[in-house]
Amino acid sequence: MSVTDELLANNAEYARTFSGPLPLPPSKRVAIVACMDARLNVYGALGLAEGEAHVIRNAGGVVTEDEIRSLAISQRLLGTEEIILIHHTDCGMLTFTDDEFKRSIQDEVGIKPPWAAEAFDDVETDVRQSMARINKSPFIPRKESVRGFVFDVATGRLSEVST
Amino acid sequence: MSVTDELLANNAEYARTFSGPLPLPPSKRVAIVACMDARLNVYGALGLAEGEAHVIRNAGGVVTEDEIRSLAISQRLLGTEEIILIHHTDCGMLTFTDDEFKRSIQDEVGIKPPWAAEAFDDVETDVRQSMARINKSPFIPRKESVRGFVFDVATGRLSEVST
Repeated sequence: MSVTDELLANNAEYARTFSGPLPLPPSKRVAIVACMDARLNVYGALGLAEGEAHVIRNAGGVVTEDEIRSLAISQRLLGTEEIILIHHTDCGMLTFTDDEFKRSIQDEVGIKPPWAAEAFDDVETDVRQSMARINKSPFIPRKESVRGFVFDVATGRLSEVST
Repeated sequence: MSVTDELLANNAEYARTFSGPLPLPPSKRVAIVACMDARLNVYGALGLAEGEAHVIRNAGGVVTEDEIRSLAISQRLLGTEEIILIHHTDCGMLTFTDDEFKRSIQDEVGIKPPWAAEAFDDVETDVRQSMARINKSPFIPRKESVRGFVFDVATGRLSEVST
């Protein structure tokens, strides 16, 4: 059995006690941008329930054009007001450089990715970089509460990054 | 108290019983690309535990350049092999068009976003579009198991999209 099939079996169990549908707009009016890391269970770590928050995730939890798109839709069409950014300790993005990663792909498949890999060498600095990208974007209307955190994969705790 | 502060209080509770750290590579070797929708609790709906899967999310669960970046890092550096795509019923992306959304931003702030909003008018068709973008990408090495699903926000059930 593939992992996908195993997770589908879990879904059948989940659906058994599911009660829906809930309203489309997030009830807590918050959007979270977090790393895709497997150890960061955003619903668990923030005590979120279904229907409460938009959750946007990618490699690193960095703010690129696609996160600006998602946040613009989240705020403009679905009424969110606060933004929480979450990077974490022991992140894979600390283990390589953009140049190395892109060169390895070019060496293997003959094409250099036209995008930045968004690797970083300091987690807190990159949280601030992501906050700056939000704060400078003309497409995100509500910037009163844009706060960044580092999740500690050893303790499960969030620490706020000072601006 | 802001919602952000409320969620931080929840985090202190979460950390109290947290046991870590777990290894960096996802133990189930799977990456999930899902919509940011608040009603889609990916860990819950798939019965995932901390450490098992990469979770990538954005408005719509669509595959854009940033999801290709994240999936390339997931597979090439962290060993994932299967990909699961999840869109859902009653999606906000069904309620507008790219042209409308971008024009409304241009009217308000004077700048037209240089990115596609990625709205769609049929969920299953857009799941297939996202699968096609993965299958045509030269940067994603493992395409043996790329499967797409629609999550029903009324029942909590996943339905597979035929290719």
